[in-house]
Amino acid sequence: MNKFDSDMNLPKHVKLVEVGPRDGLQDEKKILSVTKRIEFINKLAHCGYKNIEVGSFVSKSAVPQMHHSDEVLNQLDRNTAVKYSALVPNIKGLTTALSTHVDAIAIFMAASESFSKNNTNCSIQESIQRYSEVIHIAKQHNIPVRGYLSCIFSCPYEGNIQEEIVVEHAIKLHSLGCYEIALGDTTGLGTPRKIQSLIKTLSKHIPIEKIAFHLHNTNGLAMVNIYSALCLGVATFDCSIAGLGGCPFAKNATGNVASEDLVYLLNSLEIFTGIDLNYLVETSKYICNLLEHPSNSNITNIYEQIQLQ
Amino acid sequence: MNKFDSDMNLPKHVKLVEVGPRDGLQDEKKILSVTKRIEFINKLAHCGYKNIEVGSFVSKSAVPQMHHSDEVLNQLDRNTAVKYSALVPNIKGLTTALSTHVDAIAIFMAASESFSKNNTNCSIQESIQRYSEVIHIAKQHNIPVRGYLSCIFSCPYEGNIQEEIVVEHAIKLHSLGCYEIALGDTTGLGTPRKIQSLIKTLSKHIPIEKIAFHLHNTNGLAMVNIYSALCLGVATFDCSIAGLGGCPFAKNATGNVASEDLVYLLNSLEIFTGIDLNYLVETSKYICNLLEHPSNSNITNIYEQIQLQ
Repeated sequence: MNKFDSDMNLPKHVKLVEVGPRDGLQDEKKILSVTKRIEFINKLAHCGYKNIEVGSFVSKSAVPQMHHSDEVLNQLDRNTAVKYSALVPNIKGLTTALSTHVDAIAIFMAASESFSKNNTNCSIQESIQRYSEVIHIAKQHNIPVRGYLSCIFSCPYEGNIQEEIVVEHAIKLHSLGCYEIALGDTTGLGTPRKIQSLIKTLSKHIPIEKIAFHLHNTNGLAMVNIYSALCLGVATFDCSIAGLGGCPFAKNATGNVASEDLVYLLNSLEIFTGIDLNYLVETSKYICNLLEHPSNSNITNIYEQIQLQ
Repeated sequence: MNKFDSDMNLPKHVKLVEVGPRDGLQDEKKILSVTKRIEFINKLAHCGYKNIEVGSFVSKSAVPQMHHSDEVLNQLDRNTAVKYSALVPNIKGLTTALSTHVDAIAIFMAASESFSKNNTNCSIQESIQRYSEVIHIAKQHNIPVRGYLSCIFSCPYEGNIQEEIVVEHAIKLHSLGCYEIALGDTTGLGTPRKIQSLIKTLSKHIPIEKIAFHLHNTNGLAMVNIYSALCLGVATFDCSIAGLGGCPFAKNATGNVASEDLVYLLNSLEIFTGIDLNYLVETSKYICNLLEHPSNSNITNIYEQIQLQ
């Protein structure tokens, strides 16, 4: 192999999961109405997404931004090309989800014991037991289940997380029946070597097609992390329009990877996503206007400059 | 070759050229005294840099920030491990440079005709003639010459620049006797494919050891661009502490790659630079304090968070 062909393994297509309406909006100070959330989701579908996470069935008191996710799911303009999914924390949430037109659900587990206890009020073992039941019932209703695994490199409470722990829990989610494992770099401190090492180990146990990354850009390496994952054949990534999901008001915003930035990178690599970047940038401006803060996307902020080139 | 070994060609060592005291400071509103500039350069040498561009011999009216570069060069604490260089635009500048303890000089050419005329007031052909003489005299004095080539992907006036034009001028600079060609992405709109394509073509004509990149981070892809260059064996990069050199006051800062961010990336890839990241972050805070604006480096801004992990 010629040493100049290091990019030959890049996938030809990448599947993007837009998490702005859920992981993005749930961190926003401003609470949008059901009507506005639906308008936002319809615009995202129009961008060309095939996978949109539109809400979550958690308690209103815990996450007021996600209240009425059932109405959002039932009233949006259903595009048959799009899979609309929602986060489900427990049996109660699943019951509500099953009463809607949800296409898939997602469950959420942490690779860190302290993060699990602090954020879901149960141990990792307890969350596995809880989700086993959720997955079992979802499958009876032919609803596919996506598994999030957070804190894959480090935890805000515990610091570094051992790769073997992450691999063990990812395998567990897979064996429970999750169709895809979304590996979340919650602290946003991942690096290409950590990403590639995790992929190398995990893909011995789980088909690489089932591995997705959900990255935050805290250390500024999200794009190079994604590139290093692409080089190893990973072809599914979460992204959030305008980088929603961090704190756009804070100096060191630690949001999700901005969808526009990722689509721009993938376009430049000639990797097909099906997303219309022009309309995506417009939608980014639209949602930031509603949320009353600037976009956290490099590309949206310099888009006019790019178009002049 | 195993498809998981795409990073096996990464270099073991990378040479970093710190351009903060020249390319960085020349864009700052606040003009530092000779004493402060020297203090800054001495701190950079203490960080472990072996190559620091410390000034330029241009007219005081054009770039007041760089006035007295001769005093800076003659009065700094000379560290024998460090090569101190300066930018030289013409014979007059060269004459002043030769009166100092400069270790190397740099010349500056554009791959865009409009950029050349707008920024150096001469055509590309005229600048080649001018520099031929500069290089000839510098060589007589045993002063090595580095060649900058700007606008390698696009030009603020002309838009896209053809790769063959860039290659032609880079070869010219090399044939004139430049020991290194620093390819400058002036508009900061480079992408991994453009970077890799340029390297593939250019390295047929110029040894890869003589190719350096000088990247700006306008589109947010500088780190992935560097990674893609590293994958093809490029091992010399310019960087600017705190990302100095863009406009830290503007919303869409388009500065140079921040040295701290690059060293953090290279450390994570286990590539040796000789730079002490702790002291680099301290120096970044020190210079930003003097310049009265925040650091444009992701890593410096979250360094405490990183150290807790």
